[in-house]
Amino acid sequence: MKIAINGAAGRMGKMLVSLAKDAGMEVIARVDIAEGYDSVWPEGTEGVIDFSYHTATPATVEEAVKRNIPCVIGTTGLTAEEQEIVNKAAEKIPVVQSGNYSLGINFLLEMARKAAEVLGKEYDVEVVEMHHKHKKDAPSGTALMLAKSVAEGRGVAPDFVYGRSGEVGERPAGEIAVHALRGGSVVGDHTVMFAGDVERVELVHKAQGREAFAAGALKALGWAKGRAPGMYTMRDVLGFA
Amino acid sequence: MKIAINGAAGRMGKMLVSLAKDAGMEVIARVDIAEGYDSVWPEGTEGVIDFSYHTATPATVEEAVKRNIPCVIGTTGLTAEEQEIVNKAAEKIPVVQSGNYSLGINFLLEMARKAAEVLGKEYDVEVVEMHHKHKKDAPSGTALMLAKSVAEGRGVAPDFVYGRSGEVGERPAGEIAVHALRGGSVVGDHTVMFAGDVERVELVHKAQGREAFAAGALKALGWAKGRAPGMYTMRDVLGFA
Amino acid sequence: MKIAINGAAGRMGKMLVSLAKDAGMEVIARVDIAEGYDSVWPEGTEGVIDFSYHTATPATVEEAVKRNIPCVIGTTGLTAEEQEIVNKAAEKIPVVQSGNYSLGINFLLEMARKAAEVLGKEYDVEVVEMHHKHKKDAPSGTALMLAKSVAEGRGVAPDFVYGRSGEVGERPAGEIAVHALRGGSVVGDHTVMFAGDVERVELVHKAQGREAFAAGALKALGWAKGRAPGMYTMRDVLGFA
Amino acid sequence: MKIAINGAAGRMGKMLVSLAKDAGMEVIARVDIAEGYDSVWPEGTEGVIDFSYHTATPATVEEAVKRNIPCVIGTTGLTAEEQEIVNKAAEKIPVVQSGNYSLGINFLLEMARKAAEVLGKEYDVEVVEMHHKHKKDAPSGTALMLAKSVAEGRGVAPDFVYGRSGEVGERPAGEIAVHALRGGSVVGDHTVMFAGDVERVELVHKAQGREAFAAGALKALGWAKGRAPGMYTMRDVLGFA
Repeated sequence: MKIAINGAAGRMGKMLVSLAKDAGMEVIARVDIAEGYDSVWPEGTEGVIDFSYHTATPATVEEAVKRNIPCVIGTTGLTAEEQEIVNKAAEKIPVVQSGNYSLGINFLLEMARKAAEVLGKEYDVEVVEMHHKHKKDAPSGTALMLAKSVAEGRGVAPDFVYGRSGEVGERPAGEIAVHALRGGSVVGDHTVMFAGDVERVELVHKAQGREAFAAGALKALGWAKGRAPGMYTMRDVLGFA
Repeated sequence: MKIAINGAAGRMGKMLVSLAKDAGMEVIARVDIAEGYDSVWPEGTEGVIDFSYHTATPATVEEAVKRNIPCVIGTTGLTAEEQEIVNKAAEKIPVVQSGNYSLGINFLLEMARKAAEVLGKEYDVEVVEMHHKHKKDAPSGTALMLAKSVAEGRGVAPDFVYGRSGEVGERPAGEIAVHALRGGSVVGDHTVMFAGDVERVELVHKAQGREAFAAGALKALGWAKGRAPGMYTMRDVLGFA
Repeated sequence: MKIAINGAAGRMGKMLVSLAKDAGMEVIARVDIAEGYDSVWPEGTEGVIDFSYHTATPATVEEAVKRNIPCVIGTTGLTAEEQEIVNKAAEKIPVVQSGNYSLGINFLLEMARKAAEVLGKEYDVEVVEMHHKHKKDAPSGTALMLAKSVAEGRGVAPDFVYGRSGEVGERPAGEIAVHALRGGSVVGDHTVMFAGDVERVELVHKAQGREAFAAGALKALGWAKGRAPGMYTMRDVLGFA
Repeated sequence: MKIAINGAAGRMGKMLVSLAKDAGMEVIARVDIAEGYDSVWPEGTEGVIDFSYHTATPATVEEAVKRNIPCVIGTTGLTAEEQEIVNKAAEKIPVVQSGNYSLGINFLLEMARKAAEVLGKEYDVEVVEMHHKHKKDAPSGTALMLAKSVAEGRGVAPDFVYGRSGEVGERPAGEIAVHALRGGSVVGDHTVMFAGDVERVELVHKAQGREAFAAGALKALGWAKGRAPGMYTMRDVLGFA
């Protein structure tokens, strides 16, 4: 598959370029405004991944519509107008849009929801994440997404506890706790624990770098090729939807 | 729900009796050949769980058919003839039959298959189990079931490696390894690792006792109540089938 | 070794009695005020373990002095007067007194202190514990002891963080965090993590029951036999002091 | 401290140069035969780290003796003659020589030995390591060093089991097993488990890169400064010897 990378000079763009071959793809256009990069997609481009900037995304999807090729969108923070243009495009071409392209994280999100449904509220849920000492917010966005998946699986509102100290009393039934560990240079570990009276189930993800996002975006584009027009997410790519 | 327990004097039977109330059920017949136990189910019995012995299972399901109530079968080693009687019964009542009633293990089996499908062969699979020092066979039956789920998810034959030492060379693509740890009094830990180039996913189960099997069997009976006749497994109970 | 158990009718006392044989000891006096128990130690008693109640401990150590035999004290909450009597006794016989007799926990306490010394403040410390849903206080006393060992190893005051949420900023150098997880029926797991820029070290303890305390107290008594008079702790028994 | 790095053009040499400042050191000589590197140490050099090649090590230590400065040796595979020259030098200057300079691994080696002594043979030992799929030998050298530490702590010969399958029978008392997991891009995880009848202790190390070796060698040089002449290892640097 011959593909174009939009935002090829950025950190994610460079990773996409370097990982494309392993994913069985040929990058025929590295598009960016930086010097030495391409400004257009050549004839024969069969798909595009956009990790440029949200203001550039409308033009990208419109060009994809003209070419009738699938588009994977990795930009975030789109305005309502920009999003509307993306939605319109998805009526004519397959568009994949996701906040996190890691296969493993998307798999875990799905498993967390399913475990919450299957095991029920009798299994106490504790989410634990660990990141490097430089991370400024807590818990991680991914940990909160995992906790929300559990809440969705249970059909309850997302309402979390972030630590315990003192005379807290017995653990309330249905409570969901999220613990943020910080230290060293840990890229990102996440664990969702379901602790029942007689057994524990744990779903664990360990990231080794941002390459996971690039690898997932490439997989998404391969999946979208030849697919019917529509707006898709990684849930579709992974076969859960 | 008013239920009968067949094999109520056995280890599993006793657990079923003691856990029934927490599962919202009332045991109105504790059936066993041992002294002090019941020999028949009273009027109003709404379901039966059979953990007696495979030779007693045909009579149990036939009685369940007469009563038109659901039946959960936990006996193992049924002969072809015995199984045939169970299958016939399942044309008239809902029958759940599974080799392992733990919710957590059944969830993990399903997740392992799904992860193998979704993540693909690029994620190397290593299964690790740990049991107490008295266990005589290795790996555990559950570890082998988990490894088989991975093989099924990949659509390949079950062919496993059980340890590595010496100049083994690079890990062959597609290899599935199963490692059996033994020590102390560990009831049973199982981990299925999917190690990719950029991330790891781990599915973990920790058993704390055989109660998990009893709790799952009770859940299965509750699920089966009012269901259409048919032969079901824990996959159905968990909503995966 | 022929031994007496004081408080033999209590939960710990019963475990001491049942585990003594495996530890190579013979219980010749099961002392308790409950019916059916002994009230005195026979001739030939070579050592005593006291898990009765702090008010009974002074008489116990004084009797041990008369017999010139070692004494292991497992009672807690001694008044200053009671403790003074114990201290006096330790001038004449070997006395072991510890707040927690688990070998594993005492080993971890020592390792945590040593790791803090050896690895230094550049390794960020996070203590994580998990206990069953019925535990009412958080974090566990053992988790706090572990965190204090780290503070001692660093030569700083014990000052801990118990959770993180929101815009907490970069992790302050030297911070020690303690996270309390609750769920299901977990007996007690403790992990002390040292996360450096290039590696992580983790010290882990998993309890499977209170037997660990009984086994450690029995080991302490065997160790004390024939030892010089003095006041000892599990640090001495383990060979760290 | 003003230091010289021998073998500064190599992978370890480059890391030493880049990490020196964080360790409070100034690299005033980057020595290598490659172009653009230094060939001599200037006046005022206060210590040297040698990660060049074993044939160059004798000249390095002899120069260190002339300058009367400490020397840290990271080269491996020294011949008996080369080693003899190093030993002679250690009569006049402090020399640190170790096969692995990671603080964490050296800490774990010491802990594994100590745990084996303290906990005794009743705690079953299982060593588990995981490395990337490209590693050709199994188990890792570090895993074998850890298992040997356990054997030393027990005072028994190093004799290990590398996997289990089939009807293996109950775990023999005193057995030490080493399991080699392979997959993805894991840099190097090691766990030493001590599984007793009532508790488990686990010592865990997770490497994130080779920087751990460079950081440890720099620490060793700082430790050696002003020390009495002698041959030291990382055990001394960590304060265990």
